[in-house]
Amino acid sequence: MSKKPLILVTNDDGINAPGIRTLIQVMKTIGDIIVVAPDSPQSGMGHAITLDSTLYAEEVNINSESHKEYSCSGTPADCVKLAIRELLPRKPDLCVSGINHGSNSSINVIYSGTMSAAIEAGIEGIPAIGFSLLDYSWNANFEASKSFVKTITKNVLKEGIPNGVVLNVNIPNVSEKDIKGIKICRQAKANWVEEFDKRKTPQGKDYYWLTGKFVNLDGGEDTDEWALENNHVSIVPVQFDITAHHFIKTLNTWKLND
Amino acid sequence: MSKKPLILVTNDDGINAPGIRTLIQVMKTIGDIIVVAPDSPQSGMGHAITLDSTLYAEEVNINSESHKEYSCSGTPADCVKLAIRELLPRKPDLCVSGINHGSNSSINVIYSGTMSAAIEAGIEGIPAIGFSLLDYSWNANFEASKSFVKTITKNVLKEGIPNGVVLNVNIPNVSEKDIKGIKICRQAKANWVEEFDKRKTPQGKDYYWLTGKFVNLDGGEDTDEWALENNHVSIVPVQFDITAHHFIKTLNTWKLND
Repeated sequence: MSKKPLILVTNDDGINAPGIRTLIQVMKTIGDIIVVAPDSPQSGMGHAITLDSTLYAEEVNINSESHKEYSCSGTPADCVKLAIRELLPRKPDLCVSGINHGSNSSINVIYSGTMSAAIEAGIEGIPAIGFSLLDYSWNANFEASKSFVKTITKNVLKEGIPNGVVLNVNIPNVSEKDIKGIKICRQAKANWVEEFDKRKTPQGKDYYWLTGKFVNLDGGEDTDEWALENNHVSIVPVQFDITAHHFIKTLNTWKLND
Repeated sequence: MSKKPLILVTNDDGINAPGIRTLIQVMKTIGDIIVVAPDSPQSGMGHAITLDSTLYAEEVNINSESHKEYSCSGTPADCVKLAIRELLPRKPDLCVSGINHGSNSSINVIYSGTMSAAIEAGIEGIPAIGFSLLDYSWNANFEASKSFVKTITKNVLKEGIPNGVVLNVNIPNVSEKDIKGIKICRQAKANWVEEFDKRKTPQGKDYYWLTGKFVNLDGGEDTDEWALENNHVSIVPVQFDITAHHFIKTLNTWKLND
């Protein structure tokens, strides 16, 4: 019987994306893998799940590999649910998501399909990591990512992650020799200032494209934004108990039951 | 000049849902309102945003009301972004989302379109509240909700909410006289045990419906689940800095840079 860990691999850019192909390559050196990933790009899907329509999962063979791969019609969170309940022979030892084409640092974690897959696995009690490279292009160069992905994954398997926590890893888009190391961080306080591009259809109806500018409002040197700007790989531990515990005491002073 | 607060009203069940119609009724007694809500149901959309397609926002007049209403083709988070940047005359003083048809307590907050709208407003620095009634049916009875929605909203406008926090309010599905009051809570540790209903298309291809059973693993009497089971309205303050601060120290002991 194999003593290798069983690793579920997923993403949000779709099963054919170069990012997940790199992640598969690295994970094959660490464990037995099964891939369950969306059949089409799902960026910006947040933690969406499919409630009102059907889900398909088709076994596919993309690079004549020996492991199993399923292409799924759902969101990243759907992929993880379906994998765990229907497609995998047993509960996986780890779930990895990515490597995303583009940043999921700071507030981007909230909108991220990559991280929603990792969080879904975390909710199921499976150690999970989301990986992202700070390059949005399809032809991003994932070479420098490989050794960091491997190091972090091996540490997670060795040390474990407590229930309720998953890791959000972002990798700067520079060559491996320019990366200064791995840094543990908190999520920077940043947001997007949207600029809608308003246009008219050929029929004269208004419509909008969402565009925006990322604004980092956080000068802290312990943030993921600082780490990435200074050529570190950032790891932010994230949680899905989103209670703002610090505000409970104040709320209890409000006159709500008079 | 009006001294009334400007209130943005949105939801995830769609602009025609009885829940948002009730919320509009209550908010009109408190301030000047503008409605920007999805043109169709968006339940389970999590914090999805529309990146790869166009957005429409059409002015509509549903109940011959004097305030403005826009029906938007996007997700709840899109509605809030578009409202703030394009449709509202100024930054609103408050954003309310709901009243959702169905619970957004405990882990449901992660999947919730209702709460993603409130969180999006929070990211923009606007005090925000998501309201949900524990009845999934379209014909849910929102009568008992009204006074609690009004009380909580007035308190938020009076007291304010700190940056980075929004409120998640859930209302039990019982008559007003049976509701014991409003209770400040933390998010219960609970999850869904999915059961996929596997079927075959008429053409013989496998497909799945997502179904599931909600399992509360948390015996605490300070949770939203406990409050709701005991006929209290629950308020959980939630945050969008999801850093698991408690795990940073341990992570820093890992050998990641050797």
